[in-house]
Amino acid sequence: MIKERLSLDDDQFFSYEAATEMAKQEVERILSASPLIIREFTAHLAQAPGKCIRLASVLVSAQDHQERIPEDAIKVAAAVEILHLATLVHDDVIDNADLRRGKPTLQKKYGVKTAVICGDYLLSVAMNLAASVQRKDDWLTLRLPGYLGRLCLGELNQHINNGNYHLSVFQYLKIIAGKTAALFEASFLAGAMLANEPENMAKRYARLGRYIGMIFQLTDDCMDFEASRKEINKPVQSDYEQDVITLPLIHAFNQVNGLRARAQGKRLLRDEINAAVQKAGGLVFTRTLAKKYYQKAILLLNNLPVTPEKRAALEKILESSYRVF
Amino acid sequence: MIKERLSLDDDQFFSYEAATEMAKQEVERILSASPLIIREFTAHLAQAPGKCIRLASVLVSAQDHQERIPEDAIKVAAAVEILHLATLVHDDVIDNADLRRGKPTLQKKYGVKTAVICGDYLLSVAMNLAASVQRKDDWLTLRLPGYLGRLCLGELNQHINNGNYHLSVFQYLKIIAGKTAALFEASFLAGAMLANEPENMAKRYARLGRYIGMIFQLTDDCMDFEASRKEINKPVQSDYEQDVITLPLIHAFNQVNGLRARAQGKRLLRDEINAAVQKAGGLVFTRTLAKKYYQKAILLLNNLPVTPEKRAALEKILESSYRVF
Repeated sequence: MIKERLSLDDDQFFSYEAATEMAKQEVERILSASPLIIREFTAHLAQAPGKCIRLASVLVSAQDHQERIPEDAIKVAAAVEILHLATLVHDDVIDNADLRRGKPTLQKKYGVKTAVICGDYLLSVAMNLAASVQRKDDWLTLRLPGYLGRLCLGELNQHINNGNYHLSVFQYLKIIAGKTAALFEASFLAGAMLANEPENMAKRYARLGRYIGMIFQLTDDCMDFEASRKEINKPVQSDYEQDVITLPLIHAFNQVNGLRARAQGKRLLRDEINAAVQKAGGLVFTRTLAKKYYQKAILLLNNLPVTPEKRAALEKILESSYRVF
Repeated sequence: MIKERLSLDDDQFFSYEAATEMAKQEVERILSASPLIIREFTAHLAQAPGKCIRLASVLVSAQDHQERIPEDAIKVAAAVEILHLATLVHDDVIDNADLRRGKPTLQKKYGVKTAVICGDYLLSVAMNLAASVQRKDDWLTLRLPGYLGRLCLGELNQHINNGNYHLSVFQYLKIIAGKTAALFEASFLAGAMLANEPENMAKRYARLGRYIGMIFQLTDDCMDFEASRKEINKPVQSDYEQDVITLPLIHAFNQVNGLRARAQGKRLLRDEINAAVQKAGGLVFTRTLAKKYYQKAILLLNNLPVTPEKRAALEKILESSYRVF
């Protein structure tokens, strides 16, 4: 435990840089210090930690008016990131994915069964870590398992709509609100609670997190098409090839005559799908929707009573979710 | 929530019968009142609730000196039972099982992916329910996620030892201490904490739970051989046929010359395995070990400062785990 390593008192605070470093170290420590039997499987997760945007979301939101971050936020940030890793491990089972960030997935390397158990183990570790905060009330109010439940519903909703060529824009938004935005919402809410924000203010942070999560996923869905346009021969399957129907394609189905019927008849080639999405303006449509969430987020952010430094840090996370700049 | 339905105050208590009924109803309510998308998949779990021995373990342990059970115990009992169901759903994925209690498994009926997500959802619901107790301290002290972690380690340990014909008695006991006994331990510990037992006493309950869990699994492993002797043509695969090596077979490997080598060479027929286990006295050996745990449990139980009624109820759970009477 980080607490034992540093033997801090209740009121110790950290700068954003120090807190980020400590939270990332905590994630790595947990992944590499798991029981031997788990470590073998999680070691390569530790090697590919990614950008840790959820971890950063907790820490930035938890800054007080002097941009100081309480020790508990470091634990919660690490817990949220591990929870995210756990969901990735199960995601890869669900999507039957071979690669994640260019490396073989746990399930590809060690089989579905190992991946299911390792994901469960990481879930339990994340919950345990979150429960180890000194101010227990914060954690109880956060109700992390509730967010996990929403995440599962989003995943299941996506899974049962795999290959559903009649998925509506509304249904799609509901899916991503669960599978992606729920954990962002939890991250911002947790940060606000750790910063002692009153309830009405914490709700605003939660909403900001939800918007950022929606932007993040909408952008991701565009990037999937853009990537497949750039590297037609890349080994990774596109969303469409995995039967995941995302917004750019839904828009194309709604715009291009006969496309839906053709897609239902047989698996279309990746370039035909890409050309149709391009022709229908599916990416522009999706980016525009992301921009609407972005504008809502900016409006909310401008009215948040925070220091210019904290606002800038929150904006940076927002920008990184938008990823067009 | 049961709390809202009954609008009880903090100090309301229930008889064992009433508490059992309410906890079972809570499990059914949660399974059948899940979001539509989950309900479809969990409905048939609700139809096969089994004996709910973990639920009973929480409730009996939570009895005070007038055999009264606090309301929180009902929630925790339901949470532990749902956690158990969640692990069964993932277990079936791990064991690639087609039938559970004579009915098709979730993964057989709806596929591995659905089973993974539904299991995750049930885990989150169980954690959430446990966190909804009024006396939050109890739940925080219990550290349910920690037990879930131990359970995962046991499962993983079993999985990587599938088909390991050199599994030792010690390794086997370590596996079942995780995969089965951990949740029994958590159930008894939770009950003791809810009954306000001091820490040293709560530890004794935890130990009692561990013994009962060990007996339960050892008995289960014997029953697997006994069942397969009775119904050679039954559609359910035996542990051996699923590559799960249990104590009766380990004993046979240690006793019957050349059996291990033959088993490594090719898959033996079920009746050859059964005959070897029989000849080696594998079932007697396993039952004898179960009896040792039983005697330890009886000794512990006799020294537990409880009312005769509570002792009798605890004994009944112990007997039902032993299942030879």
